[in-house]
Amino acid sequence: MRRLATLAIVACLPLVCVADEGMWTFDNPPRAAIKERYGVDLTDAWLTRVSTATVRLEGGCTGSFVSSKGLILTNQHCAKRCISDNSTAERNLVANGFLANRPDEELVCAGTAVSFLVGTEDVTARVQAATRALDPVAAVKARRAELTRLEQACEEASQAATGGPLKCEAVTLYGGGQYWLYRYRRYEDVRLVFTPEEAVANFGGDVDNFQYPRWSLDTAFLRAYDSGVPASPPVHLRFDWTGAVAGEPVFISGHPGGTSRLLTTLELDARRDVSLPFWLLWAAEQRGRMIQFAKTGAEAARIVERPLWGLENSLKVQRKRLDALQDDAMMARRAAEEEQTRLFLTSDPAFAADAQAYAEIELAQRVYRDIYLRHTLFESGYAFSSSLFQHARRLVRAASERALPNDQRMRAYTDARLPAVRRALAAATPVYPELEKLQLSFSLDRAREWLGPDDPVLKRVLGNDSPEAVAIRLVEGSRLADPTLRMAIYEGGQAAIEASDDPMILLARLVEPESRALYERMEDEVEGPVQSAHERIAAARFRLFGTSIYPDATFTLRLSYGAVDGWVEQGTPVDPFTRVGRTFERATGQAPFQLPDTWLSKQGSIDGSTPYDFSSTLDIIGGNSGSPVVDARGDIVGLAFDGNIHSISGDYWYDPVMNRTVSVDVRAIRLALDRIYGARALLEEMDAAR
Amino acid sequence: MRRLATLAIVACLPLVCVADEGMWTFDNPPRAAIKERYGVDLTDAWLTRVSTATVRLEGGCTGSFVSSKGLILTNQHCAKRCISDNSTAERNLVANGFLANRPDEELVCAGTAVSFLVGTEDVTARVQAATRALDPVAAVKARRAELTRLEQACEEASQAATGGPLKCEAVTLYGGGQYWLYRYRRYEDVRLVFTPEEAVANFGGDVDNFQYPRWSLDTAFLRAYDSGVPASPPVHLRFDWTGAVAGEPVFISGHPGGTSRLLTTLELDARRDVSLPFWLLWAAEQRGRMIQFAKTGAEAARIVERPLWGLENSLKVQRKRLDALQDDAMMARRAAEEEQTRLFLTSDPAFAADAQAYAEIELAQRVYRDIYLRHTLFESGYAFSSSLFQHARRLVRAASERALPNDQRMRAYTDARLPAVRRALAAATPVYPELEKLQLSFSLDRAREWLGPDDPVLKRVLGNDSPEAVAIRLVEGSRLADPTLRMAIYEGGQAAIEASDDPMILLARLVEPESRALYERMEDEVEGPVQSAHERIAAARFRLFGTSIYPDATFTLRLSYGAVDGWVEQGTPVDPFTRVGRTFERATGQAPFQLPDTWLSKQGSIDGSTPYDFSSTLDIIGGNSGSPVVDARGDIVGLAFDGNIHSISGDYWYDPVMNRTVSVDVRAIRLALDRIYGARALLEEMDAAR
Repeated sequence: MRRLATLAIVACLPLVCVADEGMWTFDNPPRAAIKERYGVDLTDAWLTRVSTATVRLEGGCTGSFVSSKGLILTNQHCAKRCISDNSTAERNLVANGFLANRPDEELVCAGTAVSFLVGTEDVTARVQAATRALDPVAAVKARRAELTRLEQACEEASQAATGGPLKCEAVTLYGGGQYWLYRYRRYEDVRLVFTPEEAVANFGGDVDNFQYPRWSLDTAFLRAYDSGVPASPPVHLRFDWTGAVAGEPVFISGHPGGTSRLLTTLELDARRDVSLPFWLLWAAEQRGRMIQFAKTGAEAARIVERPLWGLENSLKVQRKRLDALQDDAMMARRAAEEEQTRLFLTSDPAFAADAQAYAEIELAQRVYRDIYLRHTLFESGYAFSSSLFQHARRLVRAASERALPNDQRMRAYTDARLPAVRRALAAATPVYPELEKLQLSFSLDRAREWLGPDDPVLKRVLGNDSPEAVAIRLVEGSRLADPTLRMAIYEGGQAAIEASDDPMILLARLVEPESRALYERMEDEVEGPVQSAHERIAAARFRLFGTSIYPDATFTLRLSYGAVDGWVEQGTPVDPFTRVGRTFERATGQAPFQLPDTWLSKQGSIDGSTPYDFSSTLDIIGGNSGSPVVDARGDIVGLAFDGNIHSISGDYWYDPVMNRTVSVDVRAIRLALDRIYGARALLEEMDAAR
Repeated sequence: MRRLATLAIVACLPLVCVADEGMWTFDNPPRAAIKERYGVDLTDAWLTRVSTATVRLEGGCTGSFVSSKGLILTNQHCAKRCISDNSTAERNLVANGFLANRPDEELVCAGTAVSFLVGTEDVTARVQAATRALDPVAAVKARRAELTRLEQACEEASQAATGGPLKCEAVTLYGGGQYWLYRYRRYEDVRLVFTPEEAVANFGGDVDNFQYPRWSLDTAFLRAYDSGVPASPPVHLRFDWTGAVAGEPVFISGHPGGTSRLLTTLELDARRDVSLPFWLLWAAEQRGRMIQFAKTGAEAARIVERPLWGLENSLKVQRKRLDALQDDAMMARRAAEEEQTRLFLTSDPAFAADAQAYAEIELAQRVYRDIYLRHTLFESGYAFSSSLFQHARRLVRAASERALPNDQRMRAYTDARLPAVRRALAAATPVYPELEKLQLSFSLDRAREWLGPDDPVLKRVLGNDSPEAVAIRLVEGSRLADPTLRMAIYEGGQAAIEASDDPMILLARLVEPESRALYERMEDEVEGPVQSAHERIAAARFRLFGTSIYPDATFTLRLSYGAVDGWVEQGTPVDPFTRVGRTFERATGQAPFQLPDTWLSKQGSIDGSTPYDFSSTLDIIGGNSGSPVVDARGDIVGLAFDGNIHSISGDYWYDPVMNRTVSVDVRAIRLALDRIYGARALLEEMDAAR
């Protein structure tokens, strides 16, 4: 009786009830809900075609194949690193745009790789078996080793079966409720085909980021190459150049990077109290340094543009996330939901051990709060901020980890992941010393502020010098900007590391014992126990809901569904569509609201009523950028590039009333390619695909 | 019965129980608690002498008279504006220190004024009578008018009685539980006598700020002048050059700027959610801009030094305040305490109307959350950040307000406060155009980010220009850096404002309708109703506790008591005293840990065991900087300049275990004046006072 009462309450959790909510795995799409709400039957063929044509940009975005010759549609902001790396003071492709008229004009995107999913396998039982009855720390290591072994076996098997270079990645879903192996085909040669000017792709800049209405052509085309020639993907998507209409059902296939919807309130509290406030202070100051640096000259402004853009984007996201977590009413709702699961576990003596999961998470969060600062400043990606240091750490770790058996290595250095390490080291991307100094001196300043001048490890880094002097000495002394040298050290292994007198290598070695210890504490005492606890919480939720729930996003392939729709903002309805003509009225002539001559010269000759961007109820998050928005036939009607400001709390919960995805309309893409940029060959290639 | 139970619980609120807690008004010192805990009887004579010798630095600090010739002891950081304003690229007094060997070498601190308290009068009944039975908005205006009338009458009466220029200020205590008139003697001619080098006064810089142990000589001497000759204050304090010992009872007389200990949790939540996160982002980015600007040259570094120092100090304070408000356990305790007062009110039908106070505060906080951003960006001191704009706004408002009867003006422009407005306008302090542009362009950037590019008022400010271009145009076009011009416009009143084509004046006039409306909404719908609600809550607390409670700090004179004491930091005891010798060991030769030659050259010849700084349990907060720490006889044994990091949460609650005040020991002051700086005349003047 009591159990039934509990079930009755929890069965209507918002998490499983809200229309259009969810980033669903393709093995478990909510077909019934879609059918009921939109009358659309998603067939197996539809799902296979759309999912296989979706590519993951390994840098953190999504794209889709749109021709038989490996052409990829994505956002300009997803290609920004490539565009920026191919720019110089004399030839600024970010500012001026780029169009390759022939394949041999396409520009190599060094360090960029794209993948598409060719198969998945549920390995939950094997991973759980490997950790059964082990104490928590042993379970962490056993789980890591088993995942590595599974990946290795998968790659060996697919190599044997297909002769092709398939990549296998172990995937954790539901925070540990399921484990999967995902098999990808990966292309490591990616080239730039087209980008509009930054002023068009990012019209409104940071000011308009996450705002709507919007007038942005955030579009780029890349091409995957295989053995030096354009790749031939198994399938690709067609465009429906007629676009979508308001209310029309639409779908997104993409790689949402991460959400926190299944996290416990204990974990959310730690973010609200510890990591978000720290990060916001960090990023806001760095933003200030970059903006002021940009004022020192045109070249300074150019080299800082891309990192500043990324920082400002993240700042907006993280400050709205802090807002969301400070919403006591929403947090109370989350706590009430959590209490239902906890009640379910405690109401049955059979689950008594599982009910301990919350206490284990609480303990782990206490450790997290204790070590967060040192971990961030010594071990995370923010430690000794500079690409030269990151290369040095990669080299130091690659050398020591490769000396270990595959299943005992840090996860980032297993055989399955070493290609990404090599790719980063080998990429001939520019390193700007002034930017390196800015970032490194900043991170040393703040490390000393937050850890104090008496921190023994930091004291060994700084000696009696100022952070500024140390940064200058390290950046000017290091030769790791040279990819040839990096690869020589990589190939030379531990002996090359020990022989190197590069100051960044020496720094990475100096701090390695401390940062390694922090890495292990975070894994053994925080992430491992939390994952183990979530395994049991997820199991309870499966018992309650079956798989009518979706897992948190993990930068793995997902399907979202919804409709083209506006919303009501403080009493005013927002139309889902904007029109091209309005961008000319918004243009002030000053960044970020200026338009280039390519556009201004065509103002009189193009149809201003052409739809430009549109909003929809699709549930997405960062990582989905560049995802194709497809209609019921699976044809592209839009290109997702942003959400409205309300969508940022989508990290924690989906609000069907306010949360909206923002996409470029295909009609604007066609108009621009055809009438503004004269990209005939590109259009013909895509139309040939129809 | 029920009432008694309630009383029994609330009578032991931490707020009224904790030893050494409280910033007490001199009319209500906790003599019994002091006698019981420390065996010290504070006589009326002691209280009068110590309070009368305490001066308020109107810029936001405290000091004390230490000679019969108007010599004032305070912190170097309290004199920093004066030191910086008297510096140039060629003669940097901040870096090099300053000692006037004769009075005619003393340097004018333009715009600085000091006051000491000569009398107080309880006017609660009159103010409450003036607002009785009025609706909330009418009550706000009636209260403001009555306070202004009381001040005016007080100044006229004291002028008639003493012939002297006494200043009267209405003071609100207990958030509206009491109203007082405070009568001050004020000196508007203040000069710099001595400051050590920044490297000594602020050894450790921002890195060590709010840290302890500490080695800082944060000491300066000023002198008050009256009609061009050194002032003759009625009393002054003596030094006890033998200093204090661990455990010795000590006292502070000073002007703590503000605390929030009596605020409701509703008000604290609004700070946690709205104002603190915004401010931290704002300040962190501005910090980054200033630091990067400082790297462009020595003069840039010099002019940005003082504002950057202030910003970094505030950043540390505000981020620890956010930490404190995110401490759910402490907040729950506050909520429980609040519930006791609320229960007291609701348990008796006679107080039913008063029990509504919390609902009124909740409504007001909703308005506050709504208007906070616009108010900050258009009306607060952060609006159009630049001293030129502040001058322009002062001029615009002074002109329009002076045309109104005194009791109908904005409070900052009543007759009692106009001298401060005039002082600010007349002060010949340097204005640095590059710094003005940095700050103004930053605030315009962020206004556009937070309000959006379509904000109608902001659009009129920016037109089609970039924030950067607007800032440059305004700063380069304005002539308000000239105090003679400013005073001419001031004297010219409304006609001069209307005749001015100064772009800053035009900007101030352009935004005045909007900023004025925001000012009024904040006063009518937030501050007024909150104050009225706090009047009733305070009345309830008086019924519960009598005056065994102290009011929140309001930059009015207070007494704190405690003892020289260390604390235990993460298991390690912290000694209350540091020694001079250790500063040489801490010195790295690099800022902020370098020592000047004045010190290095004397290292061998001074007694390294001399006490340098010490910690005590005294309960203070910002504004107390520069306060004399006196012993049971009322003689100076230290000079308060900071708190430990735990003291920052003292804004909300006092923690006797961890909260410590940090002061310079008089023995270090004597050592430095005598052996390092050779300030014989100064020592003789102070010793003559004994």
